[in-house]
Amino acid sequence: MRYTFECDYNEGMAPEILEALSRTNMVQTAGYGMDPFTESAKEKIRAACECPEAQITLLSGGTQTNQLIIDTMLAPYEGVVAAQTGHVAVHEAGAIEFTGHKVLTVPSHDGKMDAGELEAFAAAFYGDGNHEHMVFPGLVYISHPTEMGTLYTRDELTALAKVCHQYNMPLYLDGARLGYGIAAMPEVDLPFIAKTVDVFYIGGTKVGALFGEAVVFTKGNEPAHFVTQVKQHGALLAKGRALGVQFDTLFTDELYLRLGRHAIDMAGRLQQVLADAGFAFYMESKTNQQFVIIENSKMEPLAEKVGYGFWEAYDADHTVIRFCTSWATTDTALEALAAVLKEVL
Amino acid sequence: MRYTFECDYNEGMAPEILEALSRTNMVQTAGYGMDPFTESAKEKIRAACECPEAQITLLSGGTQTNQLIIDTMLAPYEGVVAAQTGHVAVHEAGAIEFTGHKVLTVPSHDGKMDAGELEAFAAAFYGDGNHEHMVFPGLVYISHPTEMGTLYTRDELTALAKVCHQYNMPLYLDGARLGYGIAAMPEVDLPFIAKTVDVFYIGGTKVGALFGEAVVFTKGNEPAHFVTQVKQHGALLAKGRALGVQFDTLFTDELYLRLGRHAIDMAGRLQQVLADAGFAFYMESKTNQQFVIIENSKMEPLAEKVGYGFWEAYDADHTVIRFCTSWATTDTALEALAAVLKEVL
Amino acid sequence: MRYTFECDYNEGMAPEILEALSRTNMVQTAGYGMDPFTESAKEKIRAACECPEAQITLLSGGTQTNQLIIDTMLAPYEGVVAAQTGHVAVHEAGAIEFTGHKVLTVPSHDGKMDAGELEAFAAAFYGDGNHEHMVFPGLVYISHPTEMGTLYTRDELTALAKVCHQYNMPLYLDGARLGYGIAAMPEVDLPFIAKTVDVFYIGGTKVGALFGEAVVFTKGNEPAHFVTQVKQHGALLAKGRALGVQFDTLFTDELYLRLGRHAIDMAGRLQQVLADAGFAFYMESKTNQQFVIIENSKMEPLAEKVGYGFWEAYDADHTVIRFCTSWATTDTALEALAAVLKEVL
Amino acid sequence: MRYTFECDYNEGMAPEILEALSRTNMVQTAGYGMDPFTESAKEKIRAACECPEAQITLLSGGTQTNQLIIDTMLAPYEGVVAAQTGHVAVHEAGAIEFTGHKVLTVPSHDGKMDAGELEAFAAAFYGDGNHEHMVFPGLVYISHPTEMGTLYTRDELTALAKVCHQYNMPLYLDGARLGYGIAAMPEVDLPFIAKTVDVFYIGGTKVGALFGEAVVFTKGNEPAHFVTQVKQHGALLAKGRALGVQFDTLFTDELYLRLGRHAIDMAGRLQQVLADAGFAFYMESKTNQQFVIIENSKMEPLAEKVGYGFWEAYDADHTVIRFCTSWATTDTALEALAAVLKEVL
Repeated sequence: MRYTFECDYNEGMAPEILEALSRTNMVQTAGYGMDPFTESAKEKIRAACECPEAQITLLSGGTQTNQLIIDTMLAPYEGVVAAQTGHVAVHEAGAIEFTGHKVLTVPSHDGKMDAGELEAFAAAFYGDGNHEHMVFPGLVYISHPTEMGTLYTRDELTALAKVCHQYNMPLYLDGARLGYGIAAMPEVDLPFIAKTVDVFYIGGTKVGALFGEAVVFTKGNEPAHFVTQVKQHGALLAKGRALGVQFDTLFTDELYLRLGRHAIDMAGRLQQVLADAGFAFYMESKTNQQFVIIENSKMEPLAEKVGYGFWEAYDADHTVIRFCTSWATTDTALEALAAVLKEVL
Repeated sequence: MRYTFECDYNEGMAPEILEALSRTNMVQTAGYGMDPFTESAKEKIRAACECPEAQITLLSGGTQTNQLIIDTMLAPYEGVVAAQTGHVAVHEAGAIEFTGHKVLTVPSHDGKMDAGELEAFAAAFYGDGNHEHMVFPGLVYISHPTEMGTLYTRDELTALAKVCHQYNMPLYLDGARLGYGIAAMPEVDLPFIAKTVDVFYIGGTKVGALFGEAVVFTKGNEPAHFVTQVKQHGALLAKGRALGVQFDTLFTDELYLRLGRHAIDMAGRLQQVLADAGFAFYMESKTNQQFVIIENSKMEPLAEKVGYGFWEAYDADHTVIRFCTSWATTDTALEALAAVLKEVL
Repeated sequence: MRYTFECDYNEGMAPEILEALSRTNMVQTAGYGMDPFTESAKEKIRAACECPEAQITLLSGGTQTNQLIIDTMLAPYEGVVAAQTGHVAVHEAGAIEFTGHKVLTVPSHDGKMDAGELEAFAAAFYGDGNHEHMVFPGLVYISHPTEMGTLYTRDELTALAKVCHQYNMPLYLDGARLGYGIAAMPEVDLPFIAKTVDVFYIGGTKVGALFGEAVVFTKGNEPAHFVTQVKQHGALLAKGRALGVQFDTLFTDELYLRLGRHAIDMAGRLQQVLADAGFAFYMESKTNQQFVIIENSKMEPLAEKVGYGFWEAYDADHTVIRFCTSWATTDTALEALAAVLKEVL
Repeated sequence: MRYTFECDYNEGMAPEILEALSRTNMVQTAGYGMDPFTESAKEKIRAACECPEAQITLLSGGTQTNQLIIDTMLAPYEGVVAAQTGHVAVHEAGAIEFTGHKVLTVPSHDGKMDAGELEAFAAAFYGDGNHEHMVFPGLVYISHPTEMGTLYTRDELTALAKVCHQYNMPLYLDGARLGYGIAAMPEVDLPFIAKTVDVFYIGGTKVGALFGEAVVFTKGNEPAHFVTQVKQHGALLAKGRALGVQFDTLFTDELYLRLGRHAIDMAGRLQQVLADAGFAFYMESKTNQQFVIIENSKMEPLAEKVGYGFWEAYDADHTVIRFCTSWATTDTALEALAAVLKEVL
């Protein structure tokens, strides 16, 4: 049995969700998100966010969600500001530009954006006389956790939001792995996020769902005729219930938070396993992604026995690789990993 | 218990698919459609189409599929030709134009396009000297069954394909309800379609799947770097297995065809129930959608007891309404409908 | 000497404009429309329109202007409504769809849109329950004169504007040949148009300028950051003075109106010449475009001696052809035409 | 009399062009670039480039040209590679992204791209396993002279072209100021450029024309149905003669090259004037743009007497400003500048 720690979407869905899909399968409902499961899911998310005015839409995937939110929040002459390493800046195959908008970049600090640098960027834009020939910064994109597993503190998010609002740039938080972020740093929880940012999404695909992301507009700021725009982007699922049942379950009895905590617990053990095997860590990560440095000559032998992710070249002889835990990671798998590492390294 | 016949996506998924999702749920696989279930599904679809060279991609929904295929098959200066009633011409919220392409229209005959009229359209375009200032017809879109439940015969499809190829316009068949079409008119089966058209999709969402459509390029004509273009359109599912498992199941033991036949059998009984209730039929339909004319005064009382779809106004006092069967329709539901009609009409 | 009446852009520019370009050629000015000639032109257009609050932008061509106005006035989920024969619906090579918007069509009556039919179109859209899956009508496009040389009366324009405002669809008037329209029907003059429609453009290219169109937003409704959007569409001319000098001259001493009247006077004589030659008129036109029916066998001999425009096939043996006058048409040219017609027919 | 050296588009057009517009004004011609002046201009440009197979299109402005070439040369999933300071990366108001394409960046060295760094960029893209989720580099954009007045040598251009062709990325040269570049470094002349790059444009707007740029496809590689694509982008001028006459004149008796040499001669004198006034130069420039450092306190007094361009902040107390010469710069103006500098500094 070869286990993989390559990423956090290697398994299907949390058993509770599978059970709910089974239970509700033959219930007849209306399409396009007009079903009672979706309604219930939205109600529970509003409650979990302590944000009764939240406007919620359930979508199928992360690129789709980023593309839709960024395009519909921006005026045509505006672009989105992201860290240079931001997912939308690098790994979305141009899905943002496809909708006509530029991704403007600021420096990345282990995946994070600095409020001071964002302020300097906005000030330079508006300070320079000829900005009429440039793309206006119209939205700020961050992810939490970031691509590199790092997290923003309460103070950092508050500082970013302050700059954003000073320059009329709404703040958008990509929460593809939000459940793992909340578990690793509980001070940044759903109510705090809902209060601080203008729009965010609660990632389901990587945190227990088979697929699905829950978009939350927090300030009554959902773009006009949003359903039509979702349809226009090819993102409106006919059987919206498939998303409704999943999020209704994730937000029943705090399943979403529990799944997140499981992955973070397992990440702690994973860290230990990796350290015990003698790996040097590329950077410190408190979330479910762990980055270590490996000799190139060991990569192939290791890959034969266990799955991991390639991250980037470190030097001529070494490479940074990634191990992920998820809601589905088991002790058995970690023990198998420990044994494999002992054997190969 | 209030049953609904409003549309063919009121239930979840075929029990066989639910079982397969349960069985495979904790198997670890790679993402983005690189999993073995997707591979197996493709192999089985190729076999069912008797088209070993078919290039297959699994997507999440119909609008997404239409948008992606039309945009990636067209050159930038080309538009797609559809019947005036075609789904892409009317009910996709501008998803085609969103990608920069015009929908050119030819007359609709109960939802169908006529090969002679298509030929006249193309001839007029190329015959007119100044077509450099017009949108080039670059792809022909048909649906089978159409929006109105009608079907193309073998001869009609062959004639359309001939015109298309004469004018270098690939022929694209939207098979959102293809399983029902094949069951209603078996002469137009998967191998015939694969041989005749240039690209089509096998609709899962309306024929047994929870969601999903299988795109089939039949002539080695898949657009370059198609995975990247799928991603760019926001249509690449991270857990591609969710689609792979569904289509692998649909194409095991001919489940797809069996589900189609069930709906068509039930449509025959539905027709009888509607006729017995004294309804006049708006048009003849051999597929799972049945259109009847109702007095406006009866609409509300009926809607309280059973679900149906509004189609269009007929005259000042009457309306056309639609009843659908699907893979999930039961005898019990039809008996309940018969009883309700007796009571209300 | 072979004269041509093929279209109204066969010559360069009015001599007064050429003189002004010469006179101002070596004056140093700022770029991008920040020059004093552009400022003066705007002031004079505001005065001619009796619309002191008008917001004016000078652009280079008609397709560019239609594309820019329609795209910047529409929300992303909206389309523009035009007559089926409207220029933007047929002869702009998909320039509207290129910006992501659908062209919705209503019937054409010799090129004109009927207020009652527009009302019915809008009412049907908003009356139908499921319009969330359709493109919203967000702007109404008309041309005056139309493609076919016809004109709207004051009452007709008022009626259209009323429907537009009832349904929150701004009314846009394409005035590519506006000078000829005003001359032919003085009741619809610039002040009336400025009062009645929401945005229009005063066509220069076809009425005396070398190139250029003056866009007029009449209700303080210029889209936000319009200069940036003009640049983004590739439509911002570096030496904006080239447009400024032309429109400053056209709006000095009523040159624009005088050029228009000249073309209409010459169109009256042209009509006489065509009638004297025994031509049947395809339709009545009061403007500078005249449409007559010719035997196919005479087309080639005629084309050798004089230029005219092909319009459309009339029947198997006859064709509709077009003769245009313009600000540049001379008596000598019309006399030559009369002689040619006598000889050929 | 206050002279300005702010930019190279402060005047109208070269007197020879004005004379040609006057001479040809009342000649009747066909529209859309089908006129004999355009035909003659193309023939002369082909000859000047020693490239008989060149496919040439005349357009109105630089942003429009960049947008059109980049969009029509790229596949939908490709982006354009530019230096970080490249005009298309910064100052086109998002005109490239508007057409759906990302601008990918490599480092800038005084505005220039390094062939080695470009090679590293392309190698990294194709070397990295997961580039399917990234934007493909499909075209390389350089300007000559660059934004900062620097020039590529023959060897540098050859090295860039070699990398481009190795990775199937056509090389595109933006020649907005090409006439000044050729005059400053004659080894990179039109025949060399035509032989080395895949597409370029000869800038008219900044080098003697009132407006206009001549696009040259050098390898039979003009995109399909290019006229239609020009129209679709809103860039097809009705009276194409306005461009034809200008370029026909610019390429008669080497006027284009003579205008270029004049500006470079004057730039040499300008350099002397600036040095004599005690200015430190920000960087060495051999072309018509000269960059010097000025104390902030002197900026306003100077601006009252002579026009110059703001470039960027240098330090807390100093600013970089730009002086340009052009085809129109006179000795009188330079003498006036010398006098003003003496007075103010």
